[in-house]
Amino acid sequence: MSSSTQTLIEISLRDQFPGMEGGWHYLDTAATAQKPRAVIDATVNALGRDYATVHRGVYARSAEMTLAFEAARRRVAGFLGGREEEIVFVRGATEAINLVANTWGAQTLKAGDRILLSTLEHHSNIVPWQLLRDRTGVEIDVCPLTDDGRIDLEAAERMLTPAHKLVAFAHVSNVLGSVLDVEHAARLAHNVGAKLLIDGCQAAPRIRLDVAALGCDFYTFSAHKLYGPTGVGALWVRSEILDAMPPWHGGGSMIDRVTFEKTTWAPAPQRFEAGTPAIAEVIGLAAAIDWLEDVGLDLAEAHERALATKLREELSRRNDVTVFGPAHSAGIVSFALDGVHPHDLGTILDEEGVAIRAGHHCAQPLMDHLGVPATARASFGLYNDESDIEALLKGIERTRRIFG
Amino acid sequence: MSSSTQTLIEISLRDQFPGMEGGWHYLDTAATAQKPRAVIDATVNALGRDYATVHRGVYARSAEMTLAFEAARRRVAGFLGGREEEIVFVRGATEAINLVANTWGAQTLKAGDRILLSTLEHHSNIVPWQLLRDRTGVEIDVCPLTDDGRIDLEAAERMLTPAHKLVAFAHVSNVLGSVLDVEHAARLAHNVGAKLLIDGCQAAPRIRLDVAALGCDFYTFSAHKLYGPTGVGALWVRSEILDAMPPWHGGGSMIDRVTFEKTTWAPAPQRFEAGTPAIAEVIGLAAAIDWLEDVGLDLAEAHERALATKLREELSRRNDVTVFGPAHSAGIVSFALDGVHPHDLGTILDEEGVAIRAGHHCAQPLMDHLGVPATARASFGLYNDESDIEALLKGIERTRRIFG
Repeated sequence: MSSSTQTLIEISLRDQFPGMEGGWHYLDTAATAQKPRAVIDATVNALGRDYATVHRGVYARSAEMTLAFEAARRRVAGFLGGREEEIVFVRGATEAINLVANTWGAQTLKAGDRILLSTLEHHSNIVPWQLLRDRTGVEIDVCPLTDDGRIDLEAAERMLTPAHKLVAFAHVSNVLGSVLDVEHAARLAHNVGAKLLIDGCQAAPRIRLDVAALGCDFYTFSAHKLYGPTGVGALWVRSEILDAMPPWHGGGSMIDRVTFEKTTWAPAPQRFEAGTPAIAEVIGLAAAIDWLEDVGLDLAEAHERALATKLREELSRRNDVTVFGPAHSAGIVSFALDGVHPHDLGTILDEEGVAIRAGHHCAQPLMDHLGVPATARASFGLYNDESDIEALLKGIERTRRIFG
Repeated sequence: MSSSTQTLIEISLRDQFPGMEGGWHYLDTAATAQKPRAVIDATVNALGRDYATVHRGVYARSAEMTLAFEAARRRVAGFLGGREEEIVFVRGATEAINLVANTWGAQTLKAGDRILLSTLEHHSNIVPWQLLRDRTGVEIDVCPLTDDGRIDLEAAERMLTPAHKLVAFAHVSNVLGSVLDVEHAARLAHNVGAKLLIDGCQAAPRIRLDVAALGCDFYTFSAHKLYGPTGVGALWVRSEILDAMPPWHGGGSMIDRVTFEKTTWAPAPQRFEAGTPAIAEVIGLAAAIDWLEDVGLDLAEAHERALATKLREELSRRNDVTVFGPAHSAGIVSFALDGVHPHDLGTILDEEGVAIRAGHHCAQPLMDHLGVPATARASFGLYNDESDIEALLKGIERTRRIFG
């Protein structure tokens, strides 16, 4: 075993996760994270003992739930390094990016304006901009990757022009684990007067964040990948941008005054939260952040990096495995086993109690770039340890024997 | 006590609801319903023991969760009388109506086309159409109410013209409890070639539904008002309409093939479900429907109607109370106590452990019509019984003494 094992967390967090019972080797945290009991308990209390609507009730229970709901907004703001009035609750990062495209984008971008994406973006950071392109005539450029699978910021610098109004990049690739230098990307974007949107889905559970220091303009993540509930996520928008954004979904809570002739809007962030929100999910998200910060983001990052490095080293020793992405990555490792379709590998691994993802990972342009239809992907969470890597390697060896 | 009490459910369901512990009188179910333990337990298992993503995993747990998720879609379809491929999962009815406005509406409606709404609509069935009006130049007409607060379908018949492409009405008013004759409204709409959208938020928990018999084209409800989780709801769209609707939110799962040049879409309903869905919430919604159908919709309707009738009778005996809405309503009763602002009434009732709603109920045009800034509203759920009415009446009497 290599020296990287020394940095692994010595304590086991696994027994805090009901979803990890049964002794399986869950290596699909980049798809969605298992939830600690603290998050489930918070959700149970929010749906049960403490349940009431928010922002409306004249009775005490509703006032208390409203306080808890808005405390959760402050909690998310603190986690990201923003201010509470800059946090919009959404269903997840996908909705957040669609929200930005349909409000800031539809208002600001005109035919001839340009957006810079990258080859490694998740579909959620491609398709909303294509839909906006169809509507407005904006053009999309694609920043290439370095040989080791990072967004090539030198290429980005050469490509960016004053016609670019937006750069939208993933903080951490959901396929390759490569980590973007967000501060550098922000300087490049701002040099040409563009805004920077960061898809933080894979970064938020793994890297300590501070949007003020990063210098981006939009940041979003999904709770379910951050050990939190499904059905909720957060969007941070720098307040001078958010305050000027028009509404998207119309309905209750986002209005100031409604008449059939003319309706006026509530200030941000309420303007972007039409209808009864995901109350229990927001409470659960705050509990997930509490839990993750209790563990510690620095520890989380070191733990996952150590596991990813270990797995990359072990896989690289095999002459029948191709490992994708940079040598130093966040806790996500994509690879291919020669002559075996990733789905077949995934199916055999499943028989061994090892759960990986096999597919295009909602990143078909990246698959095209890699020249494969799919990859096998192992991704780590705080409940993983070296035993999961050993089980994966054993399963790969068994697959090799089956396929010859 | 009047004869209506004979129809009340004799069994108590209250002890199935953790949110009802402590002996309070919760009369705000039209805002949101408390959740039975069966729903909370289903959510706990979905977030814990059974947790995995859907539609993607090659491992058994994910395949099982996908089966449960799609079984929930069939469950919702059965509940509404539609087909599973006609069910789109949304955050709630607000998002559903925005979805219809931004897909079917944006594609179909042109400047000069007309939409018929009614005076009693919730903001969620007004503002999305106003946002569409701003974008397309479509015109909005407003169907008046009968003297007792029902949508006046005779007036609707006179108002409708071939320029009308959509009629969008609430099935049950969230303020007045008045129930729409949906079959009649559907005939009127279809007579001029318009589609009929029904906001079923207050009907779905209270009235047995069959969209095929009702004859509408779109039907939506929120789970959290139906004893289910927050953060999820359902939209039913007649398949020949749904299949032709363009996508709205772009992202993972709603695509067929993504390249930067051209992206193609998945068939409905997946085309409308971008990103990781509200997995645990969808499972919880299915559990809520199971629970409600176990109790029985006919019993639910009779129980709530009996309570509403009883409360209307009791309130009508006071010469200092104005009761709004028809004599025969679903379980929602709005009223005003002379000389007392509804918020003051609500605050004093709260001291007595009685939770009502006081406000405009996201229906400001209806408040304008009623000539009041707000009403007090008591709304019933299956956990309520006559003791809640007695507590409310006692609290009103105490308020009267305080205000003189």
